[in-house]
Amino acid sequence: MNVHDLPTPSLILDANHVETNLSKMAQALPGAALRPHVKAHKCTELAKRQAAAGHQNFTCATIREMEVMAEAGLGHDLLLANEVLDTSRLGALDARVTVAIDSQETLDAAVNGGVREVMIDVNVGLPRCGCKPEDAGALANAARKAGLSVRGVMGYEGHIVGIADREERERRCEESMVLLLDAHRQTGGEVISAGGTGTYDCNRWATEIQAGSYVLMDTAYRELGHPFVQALWLWLRVISVSEKYAVADGGLKCLGMDHGNPTLAEGKVWFCSDEHLTFAPEGKVRVGDHVRVTPAHIDPSLAYHERIFVVEGETVVDEWPIDMRGW
Amino acid sequence: MNVHDLPTPSLILDANHVETNLSKMAQALPGAALRPHVKAHKCTELAKRQAAAGHQNFTCATIREMEVMAEAGLGHDLLLANEVLDTSRLGALDARVTVAIDSQETLDAAVNGGVREVMIDVNVGLPRCGCKPEDAGALANAARKAGLSVRGVMGYEGHIVGIADREERERRCEESMVLLLDAHRQTGGEVISAGGTGTYDCNRWATEIQAGSYVLMDTAYRELGHPFVQALWLWLRVISVSEKYAVADGGLKCLGMDHGNPTLAEGKVWFCSDEHLTFAPEGKVRVGDHVRVTPAHIDPSLAYHERIFVVEGETVVDEWPIDMRGW
Repeated sequence: MNVHDLPTPSLILDANHVETNLSKMAQALPGAALRPHVKAHKCTELAKRQAAAGHQNFTCATIREMEVMAEAGLGHDLLLANEVLDTSRLGALDARVTVAIDSQETLDAAVNGGVREVMIDVNVGLPRCGCKPEDAGALANAARKAGLSVRGVMGYEGHIVGIADREERERRCEESMVLLLDAHRQTGGEVISAGGTGTYDCNRWATEIQAGSYVLMDTAYRELGHPFVQALWLWLRVISVSEKYAVADGGLKCLGMDHGNPTLAEGKVWFCSDEHLTFAPEGKVRVGDHVRVTPAHIDPSLAYHERIFVVEGETVVDEWPIDMRGW
Repeated sequence: MNVHDLPTPSLILDANHVETNLSKMAQALPGAALRPHVKAHKCTELAKRQAAAGHQNFTCATIREMEVMAEAGLGHDLLLANEVLDTSRLGALDARVTVAIDSQETLDAAVNGGVREVMIDVNVGLPRCGCKPEDAGALANAARKAGLSVRGVMGYEGHIVGIADREERERRCEESMVLLLDAHRQTGGEVISAGGTGTYDCNRWATEIQAGSYVLMDTAYRELGHPFVQALWLWLRVISVSEKYAVADGGLKCLGMDHGNPTLAEGKVWFCSDEHLTFAPEGKVRVGDHVRVTPAHIDPSLAYHERIFVVEGETVVDEWPIDMRGW
């Protein structure tokens, strides 16, 4: 099938661009130095390619992601890098399961659900989950006393991953990692898990990096000057044209909007409606033309879609379900 | 089941509040005076209750919505209030199908797909689809010449539905409807379809109103002082608490963010991450507490979810699939 024969709106993925991103990351952070975060793509077909590139250990954000990864045979070493209170579905998985804990309640939940391994989640500056660095040791001790194996610490420097200046990003990253290393001295364990696509190249302190977006990219991460290339777009068709603007057939229900409007080469986006994208075309646009839209934030954009069409040039070569959606 | 035993994140719907909204709307716009827009909820169980309240004719935004409504036996009179180029799936439906057209291309598409009835979509001020009012007559003539039945006009005054001042909203609505009535004089046909929840009470010119959000509501529409009550929330659980803030277990993949952050009674939202909502609690909050979050924009929030849990007080009485998602 030709890409112009796809239904719209659709997600299209450039197979060669994905290969580029996979191989660049595997070169920079080979094997266990990367624990790819599947929340960015929610697609086991993509996770299989990350595994083939050498990354056998994965990061998940939801119980559903853990379940589907295990079912797909990708359960070699799965970290749920998030706090959960109902862990009953996790204890039953046919996989190596590790869960983040940051409190006595989440510790108790891990025990009650039959989880056996945990990481101590440490707050390193982002106002989200994670215990204070100075509390990490006591929590690790309590976990071990409760029969859990403590694999180490995790802490996400998410508040600084978007800083465009590399030196500033690296300096701020170090500040966060000093906190995480301090916590790790208290907890012990082999793993210091941190980072993301924003800091994959400057976080020298973590033993593994939890990057996810690198494999598909978006306009937000593009600002950082990383070597990764855009590999996924929203494929739309122009359904209406007037003097000053044109309208394509996808919008708010195709795109996570928290980072603002998407972009497209064919013109400047005015606004999105539920099922429309109104833009001012740069050149001549006709009803029926296709446009390729780059999402501003990849993760919440993918979560709207059932599948990704894989293309090589103009040929559609495969179709991958986004099978880790939901909770 | 008690609402506190639901998995989180979940959508919860208050059955009594929905009944309130259905009956208030049925009183204001009985029968065919309302053509409920299903894009707001994408749920045939809710559409059935709208039909039971007297509204047999529906508005859809996507081909999938048309298909699922027809399969659910709700195909009495379905309007696809949007331009489509591939209408092949529409012509085959076991339903009365009407499609909006605004150009020769969309007219041709209707004919080619086996669609028999159309409405002329007229631009009444919102920079989106719709022909110029002065072009409506020629398009209607061309449609009739091509063998299509022209049922009338539609035009959405979406650029003014959010104006908080009612008099100003009504004045601007009239300006838009003057354009639509002018177009209607050229096209003929019985139907003048327009409006939404924002203008359901002041658009006196349309023969039918395409409101959808009224049945569930959101924080954006709450500003307008309508009699409808909030009937749907995102149900989350607090998974982490620190000195200044708490974190609940749902975020950007639960909520359309184009209208900004959601709100919650328990505190002030700081920001949302993919699977987290960080907020500053007003009072004491503990890990394990549940919070009820009101989405800022209902339509793109629902589109992330597989189902709605229906509650009466604290009792979960039903579970409805959001079965019109996707395209």
